[in-house]
Amino acid sequence: MMEKQDNNVESQTDVLIIGAGPSGLMAAYWMARCGIRARIVDKRRTKVFTGQADGLRMRTMELFDSMGFQHRVQQEGHVAVEANFWVPDGKGGLVRQGPHCSSKVNESPFRHMLLNQGRIERFLLDSIKQHSDLKIERGTIAECFEYNKDMEDDPSGYPITVKLRSRSENEANPPGLDRTGTSSDPVANELNQGNLNPDDWDDFTQKSQSEQSQTEFIKAKYLIGCDGAHSWTRKKLNIPLQGESTDHVWGVIDVVPISDFPDIRRLGTVAHESGTILVIPRERNLVRLYVPVQTIEDATTVNGRFNRSQVTLGVIKRRVQTIFAPYTFDFRICDWWTAYQVGQRIAPTFTKGNRVFLAGDAVHTHSPKVGLGMNMSMQDGFNIGWKVALVAGGVATPSILGTYDAERHRLAEMLLEFDRHWSGFFTEGEKDSKTQNMIKVVELFEDFADGRRSFYGASELVWKVDGSEGPSTARHLIPGERFPPVKLRMQADGNLRWTTRLFESDGRFRIVILAGDVREKRQMERVVTLTQYLSGSDPKTRSVLQRYAPIMGRFDCAVDIMAIHSGSWTEVEFFDFPKILRPFDPVTGWAYDKIWCDDACVWNRNCDGKGYEKWGVDRMRGAVLVLRPDQYIGWVGELEEVNDMISYLDGVLVRTVACDRP
Amino acid sequence: MMEKQDNNVESQTDVLIIGAGPSGLMAAYWMARCGIRARIVDKRRTKVFTGQADGLRMRTMELFDSMGFQHRVQQEGHVAVEANFWVPDGKGGLVRQGPHCSSKVNESPFRHMLLNQGRIERFLLDSIKQHSDLKIERGTIAECFEYNKDMEDDPSGYPITVKLRSRSENEANPPGLDRTGTSSDPVANELNQGNLNPDDWDDFTQKSQSEQSQTEFIKAKYLIGCDGAHSWTRKKLNIPLQGESTDHVWGVIDVVPISDFPDIRRLGTVAHESGTILVIPRERNLVRLYVPVQTIEDATTVNGRFNRSQVTLGVIKRRVQTIFAPYTFDFRICDWWTAYQVGQRIAPTFTKGNRVFLAGDAVHTHSPKVGLGMNMSMQDGFNIGWKVALVAGGVATPSILGTYDAERHRLAEMLLEFDRHWSGFFTEGEKDSKTQNMIKVVELFEDFADGRRSFYGASELVWKVDGSEGPSTARHLIPGERFPPVKLRMQADGNLRWTTRLFESDGRFRIVILAGDVREKRQMERVVTLTQYLSGSDPKTRSVLQRYAPIMGRFDCAVDIMAIHSGSWTEVEFFDFPKILRPFDPVTGWAYDKIWCDDACVWNRNCDGKGYEKWGVDRMRGAVLVLRPDQYIGWVGELEEVNDMISYLDGVLVRTVACDRP
Repeated sequence: MMEKQDNNVESQTDVLIIGAGPSGLMAAYWMARCGIRARIVDKRRTKVFTGQADGLRMRTMELFDSMGFQHRVQQEGHVAVEANFWVPDGKGGLVRQGPHCSSKVNESPFRHMLLNQGRIERFLLDSIKQHSDLKIERGTIAECFEYNKDMEDDPSGYPITVKLRSRSENEANPPGLDRTGTSSDPVANELNQGNLNPDDWDDFTQKSQSEQSQTEFIKAKYLIGCDGAHSWTRKKLNIPLQGESTDHVWGVIDVVPISDFPDIRRLGTVAHESGTILVIPRERNLVRLYVPVQTIEDATTVNGRFNRSQVTLGVIKRRVQTIFAPYTFDFRICDWWTAYQVGQRIAPTFTKGNRVFLAGDAVHTHSPKVGLGMNMSMQDGFNIGWKVALVAGGVATPSILGTYDAERHRLAEMLLEFDRHWSGFFTEGEKDSKTQNMIKVVELFEDFADGRRSFYGASELVWKVDGSEGPSTARHLIPGERFPPVKLRMQADGNLRWTTRLFESDGRFRIVILAGDVREKRQMERVVTLTQYLSGSDPKTRSVLQRYAPIMGRFDCAVDIMAIHSGSWTEVEFFDFPKILRPFDPVTGWAYDKIWCDDACVWNRNCDGKGYEKWGVDRMRGAVLVLRPDQYIGWVGELEEVNDMISYLDGVLVRTVACDRP
Repeated sequence: MMEKQDNNVESQTDVLIIGAGPSGLMAAYWMARCGIRARIVDKRRTKVFTGQADGLRMRTMELFDSMGFQHRVQQEGHVAVEANFWVPDGKGGLVRQGPHCSSKVNESPFRHMLLNQGRIERFLLDSIKQHSDLKIERGTIAECFEYNKDMEDDPSGYPITVKLRSRSENEANPPGLDRTGTSSDPVANELNQGNLNPDDWDDFTQKSQSEQSQTEFIKAKYLIGCDGAHSWTRKKLNIPLQGESTDHVWGVIDVVPISDFPDIRRLGTVAHESGTILVIPRERNLVRLYVPVQTIEDATTVNGRFNRSQVTLGVIKRRVQTIFAPYTFDFRICDWWTAYQVGQRIAPTFTKGNRVFLAGDAVHTHSPKVGLGMNMSMQDGFNIGWKVALVAGGVATPSILGTYDAERHRLAEMLLEFDRHWSGFFTEGEKDSKTQNMIKVVELFEDFADGRRSFYGASELVWKVDGSEGPSTARHLIPGERFPPVKLRMQADGNLRWTTRLFESDGRFRIVILAGDVREKRQMERVVTLTQYLSGSDPKTRSVLQRYAPIMGRFDCAVDIMAIHSGSWTEVEFFDFPKILRPFDPVTGWAYDKIWCDDACVWNRNCDGKGYEKWGVDRMRGAVLVLRPDQYIGWVGELEEVNDMISYLDGVLVRTVACDRP
């Protein structure tokens, strides 16, 4: 037992999140959204303002849209979808190969974007504040951990005890200069306050209130450890990181470059016999460069590890100058820089007893050069966040928690595989075929990397049909994959919305009826039959909307029902549809946002009425599917396969008491 | 002279703005952007949160883009570009005519949107805060006014003296319930705090600090009166509002309707023999209805004016029910409502001595049903704002201030003319041809109403060429009109930007070189010749960039130079261009944002490379133009007509001392 002094606070929470970086904040978003009793702590005194991660893949942008703030990224970020590969021209110069652009770039409303992690944290924090009173407790360190395995299977038990200590003012920790010793932390951080966004100012000047260190013993039902590469949580669970480090040392700099290199503001690589630089243009004239510095053999090692103090900003600059030659390179403004040693490591498991979970860098570390780290971490936090929130809220059955490790571990392995292929290019010597090989690797992994495919396997949350593709009724709606985004028109008001925003991340599962061409009487009859079943018109059943537990304080039911028809917007009326698709409330009247239309719109090019084609669904007959709260497809079938669909939902959602009785 | 007591504060400011509604905040934006010493006061204790205006026309959205916050409107607002006209079907029912959509809807990146004034004020306030320390002084009343005509022509003089009094806590004034008696103010305001956006909360709970009333005598160089229909400023200037009121009384309600009317969520009209209702769908399930209530003959009048207390929410509701029949209508939630009497009134002049200016409702009042009031008011404030800011900042010559009245008075007259035509439809009886006549009036006025055309006349700020259209070299670039928006690619980084955002409202005039196809040697030579002149390579001249005064603390020169070429993005290089288009700074390196390309982009449908066609400019030869700080075209010509262009700039901008010497 931990030693508990009389003056220590004891408390309880349903969910404790350790670490308020991108993955921790994504998990915290779900607690805020679903009204879960939760705490989130971070050892640092402030959020990140500069440096760190900066790449945002298509799928991350889609998730941001479902969370309500992708427009802020669009406004501030830099789009980078075309890459140029610069290689020696054999005459002492460099020559451009490219630009290369993915053929799949238009398969999402969003593009690959670059914006520093500090801004992403800003948007996440603002979103959490908008939905709840959940505050990040900064300057707070987790120190002791106890886990009572006997309570593991009792959903009402608190098997986890953690001692938290808030750091006093006296424990020096200047903002942005955390020297806690992880190899991915900055060596030095030349934070330029003039570069600070005005809406970050309050956080930057914020000080911890406590003058003395305070401790608290907190008991939790669930713990999510998002505490980075040197995760305290992971160590307490005795889960190792497996893998190895290469002997290559890299420098990363965020600078406002002074360079006559023609593509200094374009995504690309610059190859040299001694290694390859990756160029990443960013917001506010910043450019990030990943620079191969040296191998361990050249460097002094301390206890077998590379002595990072040998890499200075000057060393990195001179390396860039060498590789960029004959082009010039210099800078006066450096926003952030660091040096790191590449390693690919992964934890064998991401959970203990499905009560403690690890996410992000805590369970997978790799080179940052694939521009995927923050995306993978955020998607980890997003994945475990909704599952823990719904289970802790009594909405979903605890068994779904096992899908976190199953779904995300496999992707972390793919991440490391991609990184092994990709990183090799930056240290190997120059070859004629290198650019083509690089493009081949990008194309091999891009569905995974961009998040167009997630490869989530079969589980209670993913009911696979025969084969790995979608069913014949909806060829491109594949259980375990994302719903291919389409811009739709709301039947009632004619406004347009991408499905990524329409399927808002609010905690609910969604039954999406692709109603087909409801102008045809026989098709409308099929829709009516389905909705009658869902409405519980059969006296032996109840409405689906009364069958499952509510998300307390947010929604009466954890399932939402929507329809997307394929008829002409002007030839169909809102009141043509069955009542369950236009639910009536005595205070707010009819809900107008359940019925949508896949029809072209004359005043918006992106609304082209080709959703059904994109989904591989017959425009007359339609189909029906269940989307998980994270917009991944859980179940797909024909309009008549409603019993099967209810079985899917029964397997993951807690039923109301009335329904639980036979 | 005003009586000055010893304990009264005396102070000076360059610009005093009275009224912090949409027009006052637009003017204040410019003071914030250009770093002008300014004050802005408002008699109300808080900003508006609900009700009031809600329509945003295309041009207003374009201006918001240049100010950096149109994306926030897009995220929250409701698009309404298709209108349905419901008329009696002759059998006791109603029948839909429509939807009608403007053929010109795609001539802007933005659509007609609906969002309440409170949110617009929020975005303006956030933008002002981002650029300066300028604070709105609320609960502050202007009480005495003195104008010293002798100082009128002295730019360094302070001809205006105003006594300001901050209202004490004891002067009751609950937020959102200002009963100061203007006919457009709310009769009652059922503010629903649950409907408040989280980012408005601080403003809503804000209290005036002063317990006692305080007074201050403030001297100002310029005064902008944006104090509404019953403008104190206008009265002090003895400028009347001319025109008349009709005898029709209207109710306006913002409600969450409970109605089976099929188009309750669509823009449209519902006609009845006793008058026509205008239906305006809005954000967060709100719908605004403009309802003809009664004529003055039916009502009790007090001192010849309509007794507003007779119109209750119940009266308005019953009128809607009558007109909507056989469809139902009711509501439980009313966000805001008011009653008003229609009048078209205009001030004969908008200025006194070009030192005091009036904007918005202070100089034109009309029915709100054309959805133009807030747009016109904001565009007034925008127009006078940049002019006063640049003159007060010593950047522009005071003579440009005369263009405010010339440009905006004419538009206010058009507004009233449109309103007279349009409002008539809502009170006249039902006719067969009415819908067609309504569409005709909309089409007659839509260029003006949407802001596609501004009709600004010739002045030192607008150098007209022969005829009223553009020159042969740029047929659709018409001096006095807006620059037709196009999505362009930045040459250096390939990112895309609408010109509406590219030409940021930062106070600078812009020389825009439509450089033509610079892949052709002879065309590039023409561009080089022009830029050599602009760079001052002739020893007798100086660079244009050194010729004009700076915007102190913001820009070294009040003129920016940009180029938009028509070549292929991949066949042209950044360093191909003359130095003045890629200015070098020893700290930040080359500026990359001056050279743009009108070329199609594979990953964005809106970037179609058809800008030159839209502008009526030959893709080979190009043209050159000067944009005013408000994105209106000031001057257009051939690349060789640079002397003429410099004469234009010399006429409006203050030259540096070195240049003023012959």
